[in-house]
Amino acid sequence: MNICLLAVGKTDFNFVNTGTEEYFKRVKRYVNFDFRVIKDIKNSKNIDNSLQKQLEGEKIISNITNNDIIVLLDENGKEMNSKIFSGFIQKQMNNSVKNLVFIIGGAYGFSEEVYKRANYKISLSQMTFSHQIIRLIFAEQLYRAFSIINNEPYHHE
Amino acid sequence: MNICLLAVGKTDFNFVNTGTEEYFKRVKRYVNFDFRVIKDIKNSKNIDNSLQKQLEGEKIISNITNNDIIVLLDENGKEMNSKIFSGFIQKQMNNSVKNLVFIIGGAYGFSEEVYKRANYKISLSQMTFSHQIIRLIFAEQLYRAFSIINNEPYHHE
Repeated sequence: MNICLLAVGKTDFNFVNTGTEEYFKRVKRYVNFDFRVIKDIKNSKNIDNSLQKQLEGEKIISNITNNDIIVLLDENGKEMNSKIFSGFIQKQMNNSVKNLVFIIGGAYGFSEEVYKRANYKISLSQMTFSHQIIRLIFAEQLYRAFSIINNEPYHHE
Repeated sequence: MNICLLAVGKTDFNFVNTGTEEYFKRVKRYVNFDFRVIKDIKNSKNIDNSLQKQLEGEKIISNITNNDIIVLLDENGKEMNSKIFSGFIQKQMNNSVKNLVFIIGGAYGFSEEVYKRANYKISLSQMTFSHQIIRLIFAEQLYRAFSIINNEPYHHE
């Protein structure tokens, strides 16, 4: 299985890049993993939040293919604990999913079109995190999921 | 009100220090804030997990005073969204709390004594995060809480 994280917008913080790279490097020991950043639409006087979401949504759709299994990281998604999340990933492998694509939206979230295309929505917490911090949290959870799947000691209950 | 974050153990990752410093700098615009690290007990053959928790618990207790209001960041605590968390902090200020102390435990969690002393337990997510990543998440949430209390635009629903 290939796993991809698609995220909208470059991060302003170096520590987010350093941290995600650290965990993604570890993830690549277990699975083909690819992190792709989609350029965000700059907020301007001519573009309101809803148009921004719409345009970013079009870019997201153009970056995925028909057979990809799409998982939105979305605050209205299903909350899981780390063990259930690792079970979710294991299930995709068991189902012979070829490309599992996680998507982190831009500052104003996802457009209707992206919601319609999604196969799953997962929430990492009831709390709202900046869409940059979410990358870091996701990176650590993905690494933790593979350490659980492989019975390694990183995760202890 | 003074807010303190007590955490057990130095972080291995520079990006965690850089990230928490960034948010704590912002938090200090709103409130007296202090971040204190308690040296952890090194895991060794002579010390099992439960003794490690016990000894770390004694250090935690010796770092707090009788009138401090103690909030454990604990995966069995109450989950809150960011707005409810900001309301929790506002309530402590309204109650004229002098010292509000958040505590992040070591790798094996808190001892019974620490649980007994705690006033509140809050969970940041159903997911398990490394106790280092928790510092970063907490730092962003504390900043977000003050931006909500002060009606600033950082948090948008």
